[in-house]
Amino acid sequence: MSHLQKLDKYFSDNREKHLEELFDFLRIPSISSLSEHKEDMQTAANWLADKLRKLNIENVSVDPTKGHPVVYGEWLHAEGKPTILFYGHYDVQPVDPLNLWDSEPFKPEIRDNKLFARGASDDKGQVYMHLKMIEALFATEGTLPVNVKFIYEGEEEIGSPNLPAYVEANKEKLAADLILISDTGLYAPGKPAVCYGLRGLTGVQIDVRGAKGDLHSGLYGGGVQNAIHALAEILASFRDEHGTIQVEGFYDKVRPLSDEERQAYRDLQFDEEALKEEIGVQELFGEAGYSYLEQTWARPTLEVNGVFGGFSGEGIKTVLPAEAGAKITCRLVPDQDPNEIVQLLKAHIEKHKPKGVTVNVSEFDKGAPYMTPFDHPLIQAAGRSYEKIYNVPTAFIRGGGSIPIVAAFDEILSLPVVLMGFGLNSENFHAPNEHFHLENFDKGLRVLGDYLHEVSNLKL
Amino acid sequence: MSHLQKLDKYFSDNREKHLEELFDFLRIPSISSLSEHKEDMQTAANWLADKLRKLNIENVSVDPTKGHPVVYGEWLHAEGKPTILFYGHYDVQPVDPLNLWDSEPFKPEIRDNKLFARGASDDKGQVYMHLKMIEALFATEGTLPVNVKFIYEGEEEIGSPNLPAYVEANKEKLAADLILISDTGLYAPGKPAVCYGLRGLTGVQIDVRGAKGDLHSGLYGGGVQNAIHALAEILASFRDEHGTIQVEGFYDKVRPLSDEERQAYRDLQFDEEALKEEIGVQELFGEAGYSYLEQTWARPTLEVNGVFGGFSGEGIKTVLPAEAGAKITCRLVPDQDPNEIVQLLKAHIEKHKPKGVTVNVSEFDKGAPYMTPFDHPLIQAAGRSYEKIYNVPTAFIRGGGSIPIVAAFDEILSLPVVLMGFGLNSENFHAPNEHFHLENFDKGLRVLGDYLHEVSNLKL
Repeated sequence: MSHLQKLDKYFSDNREKHLEELFDFLRIPSISSLSEHKEDMQTAANWLADKLRKLNIENVSVDPTKGHPVVYGEWLHAEGKPTILFYGHYDVQPVDPLNLWDSEPFKPEIRDNKLFARGASDDKGQVYMHLKMIEALFATEGTLPVNVKFIYEGEEEIGSPNLPAYVEANKEKLAADLILISDTGLYAPGKPAVCYGLRGLTGVQIDVRGAKGDLHSGLYGGGVQNAIHALAEILASFRDEHGTIQVEGFYDKVRPLSDEERQAYRDLQFDEEALKEEIGVQELFGEAGYSYLEQTWARPTLEVNGVFGGFSGEGIKTVLPAEAGAKITCRLVPDQDPNEIVQLLKAHIEKHKPKGVTVNVSEFDKGAPYMTPFDHPLIQAAGRSYEKIYNVPTAFIRGGGSIPIVAAFDEILSLPVVLMGFGLNSENFHAPNEHFHLENFDKGLRVLGDYLHEVSNLKL
Repeated sequence: MSHLQKLDKYFSDNREKHLEELFDFLRIPSISSLSEHKEDMQTAANWLADKLRKLNIENVSVDPTKGHPVVYGEWLHAEGKPTILFYGHYDVQPVDPLNLWDSEPFKPEIRDNKLFARGASDDKGQVYMHLKMIEALFATEGTLPVNVKFIYEGEEEIGSPNLPAYVEANKEKLAADLILISDTGLYAPGKPAVCYGLRGLTGVQIDVRGAKGDLHSGLYGGGVQNAIHALAEILASFRDEHGTIQVEGFYDKVRPLSDEERQAYRDLQFDEEALKEEIGVQELFGEAGYSYLEQTWARPTLEVNGVFGGFSGEGIKTVLPAEAGAKITCRLVPDQDPNEIVQLLKAHIEKHKPKGVTVNVSEFDKGAPYMTPFDHPLIQAAGRSYEKIYNVPTAFIRGGGSIPIVAAFDEILSLPVVLMGFGLNSENFHAPNEHFHLENFDKGLRVLGDYLHEVSNLKL
């Protein structure tokens, strides 16, 4: 039997057991952004470390940071062979609005061969695939074709505030030939993709204050600035009616799309009608002069993620609100600098600050945009592994999302990053009813197993 | 002893007992807008009815409506004398944000001769003064100098949706020579006022929907409209940077201020610096060309009372929100028509609807603006009663707030409305730490008692 045939049999034989174990992982409500889940974060980290130890992975540790712990492990007995550093995250997004979930976010359920749970695809499900692939290689071959290291963090969904310091402090321990990350998606159902670029992220919270307390809108209305009106003016000033961002200098450092890239994206024949149907909109909306793929892969954004102020309960409360706030994040593309963009945002807000209020701006964590040449041998090898399992050509794409740590790995460890993900855009990452198509769980295990052999054969 | 001396002694002797009883009333959390308080509304109505019965008031009833009940009572044994219909409301505003209260909203506390509780001044405290004034007149004179009727509702804070139908159905029972309402304020500490005009109210809720669910701002950001951005554009379109409302036709029917009124307002020498200090703002903000009193008494407004959408919890959630909403109310002045203004708002929203979203507009309840000639004998008599107790000239003013039922009384019963209130603008109606200066509770009881004698002497 070829290594692929052996893997195939192993994964088929053990599928039920593997899924049951993954359910245990998904049941841990490891929401990194909410302090009440601090203990759950430790539980999730310990769970992962325990699984690594059972796989013969060595030097496994749960390393404390200023925030949530990092899980590390290694197996370095493939002499003369390349070393792959696996990265993933065991933290998940918050789950509100809870009432829009069809099943509870931390009670995994399989419906129609899809696994529903918070973290099913982003990213616990994919982290778990790394582990089971290692288990399968040991079980079927008694060894691994390459050296492996693992680093799993619990703060990806809050911008990885503590991982760069950890990586910096553990540079030698983490030395490798590439980093493999499974936190992106296929291009489409049945169509695999290797992602060679990611957008970065930066953001601010804007807090507007008028009077020292809420006022009666009858007694004071007409003579005192309303914090929500002031905020709305600031928010409306960020973009024009076509969605083009009006922050001065915002687009100055954006690397233009090459003709080759634009053509490659056109060749993907993206189905806008299907997208509209999928997300339930009458029309798409974005920067003029760019296709949807260009808008979401290669152009920066400015989105209000949340807004709050005044009375939002049932019925009416005729209050003149004293406070209002908004959370804003920008997706950034090469060669925008997150720190510089935050300064531009601040200058814009200062310039557009309405009269009669004070405005406070606080910064969220940042991640730089990242790109790898898509003709790199490690990238091309990943494409081959996908093709063997999916039987169609691999698309080489960019991702609109951000994995802030990718840029940090790039900067600190100077390693190529290979993004091999198995999610689908329709799987409600960050939203209610997150799920993972088990077809890609099954195929992905085999792709990853094959990739270790592909890398084993490369001279790096 | 004159009737005033007798009243004075009675109120002094019974002050502690009266306040203790008022505490009981204020402890009932009669928030009309929240359905979970439905039972408390009934409790508050029963409490009032019980007190009226104990005062020898006859035909007391707690009359059900489609919403919260109306409390009625009467005493009609002053033959040949005018009849005063007393109106007030036993419902209160919601209490959030609860964390900004220094003491619990439904645990009344006296600090520095001020009574702190939700409803202390708006309007339970003032309703209670009607009752104690009647009690005092019976106790000191054995009778009343005029006939009285009482109508207390539980839906004023939600726009009195059911009272007009009740008044219409009980026209004959409610027949009177005037309506006396205590739900407004003094002009300033120590400076009494009779309010001869009130603003009306109308409002809408705007609900914006983009995609069918929240989306990942990385995967979709840049290619799909953001519901909060769309809402912010609509909100920002309502006013220019000076606060002038941009809704087409909005000001068309506004009755201009007379030179006499503008002069009277100037003579009040309103202290803008003191106001800024009181509410904690660096600068006031309102329509150009109008003084603060003109802006808040005689000009219409458009205020966002609340805004909501996306993620508002701790930290960051990089979501592209599918839904956002805002609650908006307008204060109206003669001769604006609430129904017409709602149509103008709807047309404006339709015209400014951004691409890529659907917008739903729902109407709140309405109240027309109202004005009484300020040389009316009943208004002038009220001025005299105030002056006897406060020893300064009474100001004849307008109120920026709305008592929607005033216009309905005017329309259905065709009666002059006399607004004799005892609150102060600084008392945080509708906001945390609502309170009532007990000095005005004490004086107000005497003013009201005297006014019944003043009215008794009028030939109407």
